[in-house]
Amino acid sequence: MTTFGPLFVPEAFRDAVSDTAWLEAMLRAELALARAAGADVDEAAFDPALYDVAGLCEQGRAAGNPVEPLVRALRARAGDAVHRGATSQDVLDTAAMLVARNAVGLLAAELDGAAAACAALAEAHRSTPMAARTLLQQAVPTTFGYTAARWLAGLLEARLRLDGLRFPAQLGGAAGTLAAFDGGLDVSARFAEALRLDEKLVPWHADRAPVRALAAALDNAAQACAKIGLDVVLLAQTEVAEVSERDGGPSTAMPHKRNPVRAVLARACARAVHAQASLLTGGEYELERAAGAWNAEWNALSQALAFAGGAAAAARGCVEALEVHADRMRANMSDDLRGVGLGSAEALVDRVLARYRA
Amino acid sequence: MTTFGPLFVPEAFRDAVSDTAWLEAMLRAELALARAAGADVDEAAFDPALYDVAGLCEQGRAAGNPVEPLVRALRARAGDAVHRGATSQDVLDTAAMLVARNAVGLLAAELDGAAAACAALAEAHRSTPMAARTLLQQAVPTTFGYTAARWLAGLLEARLRLDGLRFPAQLGGAAGTLAAFDGGLDVSARFAEALRLDEKLVPWHADRAPVRALAAALDNAAQACAKIGLDVVLLAQTEVAEVSERDGGPSTAMPHKRNPVRAVLARACARAVHAQASLLTGGEYELERAAGAWNAEWNALSQALAFAGGAAAAARGCVEALEVHADRMRANMSDDLRGVGLGSAEALVDRVLARYRA
Amino acid sequence: MTTFGPLFVPEAFRDAVSDTAWLEAMLRAELALARAAGADVDEAAFDPALYDVAGLCEQGRAAGNPVEPLVRALRARAGDAVHRGATSQDVLDTAAMLVARNAVGLLAAELDGAAAACAALAEAHRSTPMAARTLLQQAVPTTFGYTAARWLAGLLEARLRLDGLRFPAQLGGAAGTLAAFDGGLDVSARFAEALRLDEKLVPWHADRAPVRALAAALDNAAQACAKIGLDVVLLAQTEVAEVSERDGGPSTAMPHKRNPVRAVLARACARAVHAQASLLTGGEYELERAAGAWNAEWNALSQALAFAGGAAAAARGCVEALEVHADRMRANMSDDLRGVGLGSAEALVDRVLARYRA
Amino acid sequence: MTTFGPLFVPEAFRDAVSDTAWLEAMLRAELALARAAGADVDEAAFDPALYDVAGLCEQGRAAGNPVEPLVRALRARAGDAVHRGATSQDVLDTAAMLVARNAVGLLAAELDGAAAACAALAEAHRSTPMAARTLLQQAVPTTFGYTAARWLAGLLEARLRLDGLRFPAQLGGAAGTLAAFDGGLDVSARFAEALRLDEKLVPWHADRAPVRALAAALDNAAQACAKIGLDVVLLAQTEVAEVSERDGGPSTAMPHKRNPVRAVLARACARAVHAQASLLTGGEYELERAAGAWNAEWNALSQALAFAGGAAAAARGCVEALEVHADRMRANMSDDLRGVGLGSAEALVDRVLARYRA
Repeated sequence: MTTFGPLFVPEAFRDAVSDTAWLEAMLRAELALARAAGADVDEAAFDPALYDVAGLCEQGRAAGNPVEPLVRALRARAGDAVHRGATSQDVLDTAAMLVARNAVGLLAAELDGAAAACAALAEAHRSTPMAARTLLQQAVPTTFGYTAARWLAGLLEARLRLDGLRFPAQLGGAAGTLAAFDGGLDVSARFAEALRLDEKLVPWHADRAPVRALAAALDNAAQACAKIGLDVVLLAQTEVAEVSERDGGPSTAMPHKRNPVRAVLARACARAVHAQASLLTGGEYELERAAGAWNAEWNALSQALAFAGGAAAAARGCVEALEVHADRMRANMSDDLRGVGLGSAEALVDRVLARYRA
Repeated sequence: MTTFGPLFVPEAFRDAVSDTAWLEAMLRAELALARAAGADVDEAAFDPALYDVAGLCEQGRAAGNPVEPLVRALRARAGDAVHRGATSQDVLDTAAMLVARNAVGLLAAELDGAAAACAALAEAHRSTPMAARTLLQQAVPTTFGYTAARWLAGLLEARLRLDGLRFPAQLGGAAGTLAAFDGGLDVSARFAEALRLDEKLVPWHADRAPVRALAAALDNAAQACAKIGLDVVLLAQTEVAEVSERDGGPSTAMPHKRNPVRAVLARACARAVHAQASLLTGGEYELERAAGAWNAEWNALSQALAFAGGAAAAARGCVEALEVHADRMRANMSDDLRGVGLGSAEALVDRVLARYRA
Repeated sequence: MTTFGPLFVPEAFRDAVSDTAWLEAMLRAELALARAAGADVDEAAFDPALYDVAGLCEQGRAAGNPVEPLVRALRARAGDAVHRGATSQDVLDTAAMLVARNAVGLLAAELDGAAAACAALAEAHRSTPMAARTLLQQAVPTTFGYTAARWLAGLLEARLRLDGLRFPAQLGGAAGTLAAFDGGLDVSARFAEALRLDEKLVPWHADRAPVRALAAALDNAAQACAKIGLDVVLLAQTEVAEVSERDGGPSTAMPHKRNPVRAVLARACARAVHAQASLLTGGEYELERAAGAWNAEWNALSQALAFAGGAAAAARGCVEALEVHADRMRANMSDDLRGVGLGSAEALVDRVLARYRA
Repeated sequence: MTTFGPLFVPEAFRDAVSDTAWLEAMLRAELALARAAGADVDEAAFDPALYDVAGLCEQGRAAGNPVEPLVRALRARAGDAVHRGATSQDVLDTAAMLVARNAVGLLAAELDGAAAACAALAEAHRSTPMAARTLLQQAVPTTFGYTAARWLAGLLEARLRLDGLRFPAQLGGAAGTLAAFDGGLDVSARFAEALRLDEKLVPWHADRAPVRALAAALDNAAQACAKIGLDVVLLAQTEVAEVSERDGGPSTAMPHKRNPVRAVLARACARAVHAQASLLTGGEYELERAAGAWNAEWNALSQALAFAGGAAAAARGCVEALEVHADRMRANMSDDLRGVGLGSAEALVDRVLARYRA
């Protein structure tokens, strides 16, 4: 239902948030849970290939989540020990963190690629003069390398926030008390450990700080990419023409045009992330389970992850394909700028590159 | 990529906003355009079955939209008269309005179904007393019929706003001047008429008032559905128990529970609509084509339409399945309420029903 | 608490949404209510000058709204007939509509001023050629008059939506049943009539469709203004220089710069409106009174109205001060555009102007 | 212009984000800058009492910011060395961080107060049984202390995120290159140090990661408060009545009611924060200075800080005033829950309290 998905989101990200990926994650969670609780279950029953995810979604309409029919199907294969002591949200929240961790890993790699491309530009154009523009008016000279270094600084900060994310397991049982486990805290610890997820201080079924932090970090990363996109769109304008995307996008109406398509897509994807981030950071979570806000998270999270990936991939592609027209940069500078020096622009490039290499 | 789509969105809505639906709409637009421009094209070439939408999306990545590769494929079959004088946005915006009009029609039908169910409840329980609650504190008596009548009033208002929507064709050529047509205004009029779309005063490629109005109306409709969901969730609480959903949702952890799942899903879907509405109403549209905000619309629009459908279907299902426990309503009323009359509650029920039947 | 308010919002709008304006509106509502209910009250007691609005807000903290202390103060002067049968929300919602109607009137006047300025530009530059830009790449020729005509079309559509707004009175008593009135429906009708407000089908204390429609219309109007701002910012770029704001903004760092400040402020104000519109269109309204979402409306509504006014005033000022550099427009056009005609640009200008004058 | 401000926001927070506070912060920044740059200026000229902030805002309309007129006024008193080498954004961004740091300090104290109150409840009611509710249906038993402990955990996490915030100085000169300084990087370091602000890797005039992180942390804190508000509203319902606010809010229509007003206000304030956070995290920042998105930050930031304070103060007041009705908790539990144990509820209370005390 994601319109024109492949146009925006690379396949790896689409796969990472597909219903199949969610199913696999739910099955991993169920298996880890059974083992953490000491149940003897047949691993073969947890093979995603055995389950029809679309059918589970249809059936899940009755329960408001896909875990309930999945558990029924799993128990038919692996016995009643499956899911014992757990609630649907335990499995879905844990699966969400598995899905998110994986997609965030992909996102980090895309950001790293974009960062490498920015670093190369920053170094190559450390001293290439161009006009800095405030309110889109020429202000003083800067260098293109410094522009790229500022993009890089934004990406590095986005990476740091991703690195700081924690992906907690969720296990609370029916309502967060682990009531149906013997030694619930131990089960919970083993469960988290088996999945290499964090263990939070308390179950977070109705405290969505982890989701909010994740959403904010994705939004921030997408914004760093959108900043690159916006700057490239502006620098690629016909009247500015200081950069262009190699093999820029064709136009159906105007064969002479070469559009900065990757930059445009980075901006478009970032808008999608921002919308989902607003949803994910603003829900109402009633007592021990939200009656609606929780269910709204699943698709929003997938879309935020996927479009963050789309933004990063587009920004990376944009920077990697960027042609820099130093002559034009020089020619564009208005007379008002001629007497003004570069200040610390080059020193700041060096500073960012040093951090990048550290 | 829409996570657990069938759990939230009925099949008719998923189909209505599928990539296939968009492809069909784009082909309809291209065919209507060719004819409006007087081109002699072979209708057989516009058969959606001939085109691979996923492949077009992949190829569209280079141009930032799927129309560019579609036009190439179409021209290979139907000649260069295809798309002559148009730009990608003409086709996509027009297709978006075709997709939207169709989905809004489905949405209206769901809202009508929900309205009929509310009307039946309002009539049946016109005089069934219950406690009204402000800030969730019992306030004075009301009737359940009046509660249902207020839901109905919300749905009627949502329907009115949908009915007021206009779905305009978009035709402007490369940049809104219809430069490549002979008699562009006539072509534009014929184009709109052939698709039974509105003709706007001017091309709207960079003035998105129609998209904003559509998004706001979808959001409003979803909120009317969410209001029903919220009230049902509250009235279905264990301690209140004044309503329940027939065949309420099962729980993996607690067999005794019957959850108001449809109400929960209505709220969840409305949250998804609201997020997309915020995106669709707040874009920046640079000069003659937005460099990002436009591309972000397509998926956002599909999701808003689909989840509005999900909200309406869930609200309808909820009201249709609603069991009303009049005895409990009476028993719940605190002593403070006993001496207070029903005021105009019943008269207001009558007023709403009269409007509904008008 | 609105930071640097006068920088963004003209005094008339600040006054129109001030606490004093709200106080006056609440007093008008109380007086109209008393009379509609047949109470004999002393009009002198309803003089805003008698009341300390800041003090009422402080006291209102205990009740969660300012009406409760106001009613106590009013009753001390005018007797217990004041507010009889009403609830705080009746008075606040009605006051909100009075405040909103007044501010929307001011907004309409600002939009009309902006429209007049756009119309003058459209007419004067009906045939002034310039490059149209898609994705900020030169595409084909257009005219500056057509650009201004498209701004005008956006403003006209925004005005139409404002004109379509309805401002309903709210009267429901404790929980919407008008329980404490004799002939509640008649009282309600007289109340609305006295204030020249609409009467809705049912009290809307927990159905916020009127607020949503108002917020969406304000957002839409602000977006139409932001579109002008964005286009001017882009056309005023140093490298484009096709327009400039007369007496453009000074810079502390760069005396040579002339910034398109009004355009910038229009965009800034529109962002503020959009944020509040998202709040106002997405609240959760529990049963007969929202426990939070209602209280959040008051400031959000004031801010949305004020910043919509700020956006319109800035856009108007921008267009009124716009200097059009036709020579530069001609000079900027790239060779690719030279052979392409203006298409229907001028005819579309005529069409918009005809609509404007109708 | 903030409607009914004192009703929502404590005086300390209103003061902390007042125009006067911004003026003081701008003057501090200007003074620190002059000294960092080695200028000999008369400190007396930087006394806020000398300046009329409302007048500066009026004058600032021409420049789009209040720094330009302030600098003119300052230079008239203290000479042309004032502001030398800086741009308006340097001063405003730095002032924003001073304002924010101060307000975040107040916020942290309110959260600490709320946390202390939660901790007391968690300890006192460690073993007080009550029904846990999922989708607002009774699920299994929990304890009220565990409920309070989960609120506490949310507050602790919110505090941690606030503690992790960095408040950077901004100094870049006209366009981020520090062009007009001798030894710009040294000046920048001294400037930050004098104000005890962080020094970022590069000037952040057009990379708003610090603003985004701040906004997300404020939003997160407000959500933690809103969670308390929502739970209290639900537990205080007439039919549940497990908690109440001491001296609950009076009603104009229903003397018998006692409303959970503080809980309601916490939710209302959180909605205001969320709206501003969405604005602050989603702006477009063109090249070396945003043409609109930057100007929109000032009021949004003030409002986010103030309403976060309002949310925290309301949540704190709510928890401090909370009356816990253990008998009713016990009586409310449905028969389905009687046989189910408390699981790890008490152990989890201990865990949270141990973390709190650490």
